[in-house]
Amino acid sequence: MIGVHTFESYLVEKTAYIEQRLLPALEQQGVPENLYESMKYSLMAGGKRLRPMLVLAVLEALDKPIERGVAFAVALEMIHTYSLIHDDLPAMDDDDLRRGKPTNHKVFGEATAILAGDALLTRAFAYIAEAYMDRTDVSAATTVNLIAELGKRAGATGMVGGQMADIEGESKRLNLDQLEFIHRHKTGDLLIAALRGGGYLAEASEGQMEALTRYGVCIGLAFQIQDDILNVEGDAQELGKAVGSDADREKATYPSLLGLAESKARLDELIAEAKAALADAGIENSALSPLADYVRDRNK
Amino acid sequence: MIGVHTFESYLVEKTAYIEQRLLPALEQQGVPENLYESMKYSLMAGGKRLRPMLVLAVLEALDKPIERGVAFAVALEMIHTYSLIHDDLPAMDDDDLRRGKPTNHKVFGEATAILAGDALLTRAFAYIAEAYMDRTDVSAATTVNLIAELGKRAGATGMVGGQMADIEGESKRLNLDQLEFIHRHKTGDLLIAALRGGGYLAEASEGQMEALTRYGVCIGLAFQIQDDILNVEGDAQELGKAVGSDADREKATYPSLLGLAESKARLDELIAEAKAALADAGIENSALSPLADYVRDRNK
Repeated sequence: MIGVHTFESYLVEKTAYIEQRLLPALEQQGVPENLYESMKYSLMAGGKRLRPMLVLAVLEALDKPIERGVAFAVALEMIHTYSLIHDDLPAMDDDDLRRGKPTNHKVFGEATAILAGDALLTRAFAYIAEAYMDRTDVSAATTVNLIAELGKRAGATGMVGGQMADIEGESKRLNLDQLEFIHRHKTGDLLIAALRGGGYLAEASEGQMEALTRYGVCIGLAFQIQDDILNVEGDAQELGKAVGSDADREKATYPSLLGLAESKARLDELIAEAKAALADAGIENSALSPLADYVRDRNK
Repeated sequence: MIGVHTFESYLVEKTAYIEQRLLPALEQQGVPENLYESMKYSLMAGGKRLRPMLVLAVLEALDKPIERGVAFAVALEMIHTYSLIHDDLPAMDDDDLRRGKPTNHKVFGEATAILAGDALLTRAFAYIAEAYMDRTDVSAATTVNLIAELGKRAGATGMVGGQMADIEGESKRLNLDQLEFIHRHKTGDLLIAALRGGGYLAEASEGQMEALTRYGVCIGLAFQIQDDILNVEGDAQELGKAVGSDADREKATYPSLLGLAESKARLDELIAEAKAALADAGIENSALSPLADYVRDRNK
């Protein structure tokens, strides 16, 4: 079991490992300079790098080299980044600040922000295809599985569908089921893609794939509950964005529907269930355990 | 050689064949209704279906079953459609009309239009992966090649890069090289992806791949020159959009840079070169020949 102190070093080390692999994946001949700068600005704007970290943690948990997961991890971060750029647009959430910095369209203009998002999304799939083409330890069939998995979880049945439901929900009074639908897809599906993609790359058994999926569903909801709690109790400085904004907008959140105490209890339950899934698959002694705690205990 | 009359029936038959394959590729469980309607609205809004047609024509030219090309053809049309939805947005070209119908954001609003574009782009890659996974006549390695090719031609180094250059060029006086860069990428690259993708699926030789690429470069530029000519000489009713708008906006076009007569001469040259490429590959007696003429002779 990885201790708290060790896990902090683990996060620092893995974040650095991932960050240094992001930019090389963007570098290509013939990209208009402004477009490249806009893609780079958001991809390199920091963040927890949770999705890439999950890919690497699955490989470690199943005793496979993490290097094998890098291209998929980078692609996930590109997709996560594009979704933030598009979500921040004036026609969507109209946010000026992201991670304490001006949002992409504030710096580069709306047209470039839309195109940078499109280009990051496209590059994610191309990069998986290109990178694994050259590796002998990942079969073409696995590469196709990765792309199908990512496409399903990132698109209309997944993340984009969740964002659509979120936007439509803004003008309605949502119940808990509707709120969970939104978060399961908007946030959870890309985490599930990270875990299942890691599973494909590590040649996980069917039982392990199921456990990874269950773990992903739990930490996805937990992630969102903690986000909602931080919007009530968090520190704006740490978060790099305003707090209290959900209540101001009368947005449906876990605290607004369940109350703060009940939300925290639900969060604990989900983390416990995520760990139970790991235990079922015999991979509880891996970084995936403290990563589940981290989803709950983070302050940003 | 396919005659003019026969080619007209060919176009009608192939368009119908493609159109009936588009909608089933969108149907998935769990897509928010409004998002699905928005995706469907633009995907089924008509159009020449030129990119899918090129895929099928390459397979025919190389004596392979066209059924093998359907999933890739459908994916190309999804990507072409998403690019039109995003190009029409207020922050981009701000168009109200496309193919004689209100543009996507005019019907569904900007947020949904952005998400429908994102979802179509994502679905394109997922669909290729899913559809070819189940086919025994297309290897996983070929599927990976298709995705790499499409990603390269559709993204920052291709179509999106061309659109970026186009937007940046609006405020500048462009020369012919700059204009060709824009069109080569904005329009040409996706046509090249169609042809090379067809080539991968048909197990084309290296020489045939080169010829298909050259053919694609030529018809891509030819397509754009004819577009520019139609904006001067075309019929607004047939086109489903306004004519004379390029001149009104003082937009750099082939007619504005070369004059109308010279533009037409350049168009003829490009079509002749496209056909020469086919002859080099021994596939001049295929629908690819009249398709090149069609790019020039179309009135919409």
